[in-house]
Amino acid sequence: MRSSVPAEPGLQELNTTLLALDIRAAMPLPAGLDSRFEAALRHVLENPGSLVRPRMALEIAAAYGLDPAPASDLAIALEYFHTASLIFDDLPCMDDATHRRSAPCVHVAFGEPGAILSALALINRAYALVWRALSSCPLALQPRVMEYLEQRLGVQGLLNGQSLDLNYAALPHTRESTERIAHGKTVSLIRLTLVLPAMLAAAPPRELRHLERIAACWGLGYQIVDDLKDVLQTAAETGKSVARDLLLDRPNTAAAIGVPAAVERLQRLIALGDRTLSRLLHARPALAFLSQLRNSLQDELNRVTASACEMSLRAES
Amino acid sequence: MRSSVPAEPGLQELNTTLLALDIRAAMPLPAGLDSRFEAALRHVLENPGSLVRPRMALEIAAAYGLDPAPASDLAIALEYFHTASLIFDDLPCMDDATHRRSAPCVHVAFGEPGAILSALALINRAYALVWRALSSCPLALQPRVMEYLEQRLGVQGLLNGQSLDLNYAALPHTRESTERIAHGKTVSLIRLTLVLPAMLAAAPPRELRHLERIAACWGLGYQIVDDLKDVLQTAAETGKSVARDLLLDRPNTAAAIGVPAAVERLQRLIALGDRTLSRLLHARPALAFLSQLRNSLQDELNRVTASACEMSLRAES
Repeated sequence: MRSSVPAEPGLQELNTTLLALDIRAAMPLPAGLDSRFEAALRHVLENPGSLVRPRMALEIAAAYGLDPAPASDLAIALEYFHTASLIFDDLPCMDDATHRRSAPCVHVAFGEPGAILSALALINRAYALVWRALSSCPLALQPRVMEYLEQRLGVQGLLNGQSLDLNYAALPHTRESTERIAHGKTVSLIRLTLVLPAMLAAAPPRELRHLERIAACWGLGYQIVDDLKDVLQTAAETGKSVARDLLLDRPNTAAAIGVPAAVERLQRLIALGDRTLSRLLHARPALAFLSQLRNSLQDELNRVTASACEMSLRAES
Repeated sequence: MRSSVPAEPGLQELNTTLLALDIRAAMPLPAGLDSRFEAALRHVLENPGSLVRPRMALEIAAAYGLDPAPASDLAIALEYFHTASLIFDDLPCMDDATHRRSAPCVHVAFGEPGAILSALALINRAYALVWRALSSCPLALQPRVMEYLEQRLGVQGLLNGQSLDLNYAALPHTRESTERIAHGKTVSLIRLTLVLPAMLAAAPPRELRHLERIAACWGLGYQIVDDLKDVLQTAAETGKSVARDLLLDRPNTAAAIGVPAAVERLQRLIALGDRTLSRLLHARPALAFLSQLRNSLQDELNRVTASACEMSLRAES
């Protein structure tokens, strides 16, 4: 039975819908595009994912009083960089994925060239948007912002993380290795998301350092949650553990140091994040929304701990 | 027998060697890089090719009195963009090449992920270098420069040209198609090379328009030379024509409209370029070096015409 009164979308949902529209509009597709290229680009723009990064960037920007125009340019640029990195990750020569964001991967639907060219289009547009955001900010800030962006995206950041990730089989399978990879691959974009909007709004260096540390704690934390979920997941039919990362020799902290040590590491990262967050909120109460992210991470920890207990009980019985 | 006196390198050769060193130095490779990623990047930086684009950009910059630092940043950035586009072009899913610049292609030597990540590293660094060049120029010029760069590299330029090139089999095989592809794929980077350094030096709009037109004439012209060479090339053993583009259904103006019409089109492009060049040199005599490029194109035309005559004589005999 359909409800006669349509449900009002929540504010969060509405904001996400508006952001998805902005993300589509920020990449104008001119007439005369090659039809396959245009179809691949439309596919990417029409499957925007959860948009957690741009929403977060907009909240940080608002807390620091950054003007809406550069805030929006920056948020969309970060989402384009993120999406481009996923398109490359999914290629047959990398993770060889088939689905992303509830849709076929771009290379599955439009071929590898379509995927690569779409990702490059997003990157090209993202740099133009960052440049526009940057050019409306005080001149003195600009070199530091650009350097920060280059370091997180480039050979010292995302790209090196991705390469280490692919060559994990040749690395020692330790927490140091898995965290080094997560630091490059996962934390880089979270750092950009939390730090860049604040940097553009001339946030004090001390607060930028707090945001840096929070990004590292939570970025590594969310990665460990993923790792634990992978190790603890059970095939519905057999009830047996099916650790995909272990099978494929993919970097996974829980596989490298065991579930209890990984849970302990996650607890420490949350505690370290909490101390930093409390200092940061003292200086900047408008950042209170960050507690939601922190609480989601704690919820995830609680769920995986429950799942680990259940599994060990099942093993004993 | 070795000569006892080593040959002095010519000025041109010396400049190219210094430029190659700059191109290597402009991409610092920090400690802690994944070994395969670092090896792939070193391979790219140690096989720099002819460097015709950055040499040309430096000459234009000097003619317009642009400071050496932004001129060098811009020249190296353009070379990085160019090299990245070649690395992507050579991938198995695109042109599936095995050799480039007298060395194995990056994906052949270091795998496709190594190639893709190296190309992205070049692009990331190139944007940072462009930004640095831009930031030393008058503020009023900056938006136009950034927009111009984005258009030539993005969905309206290089990327669309590459996509059309790959999907040529589905397009009408006409001069309009082949030139549309060359306009995106070849002319885009030549336009950036000739126009951006002048734009950064606040060249008058009229001269920028002349440089634009010269880039289009010569970019299309050099593409037709390549096309003619492909159609006219003969296997040394058999003496028979072995047109690779025709066999693989690749865009080729000479294959689309025939050799005589392609030669005629090339003559017209050179003549149109000459008229524009003469106006430009009248306004800016320091650009006289551009005549060398023009003369090389004429030499190429003379060679292919001779080759076409020889071939038709052989066909008659």
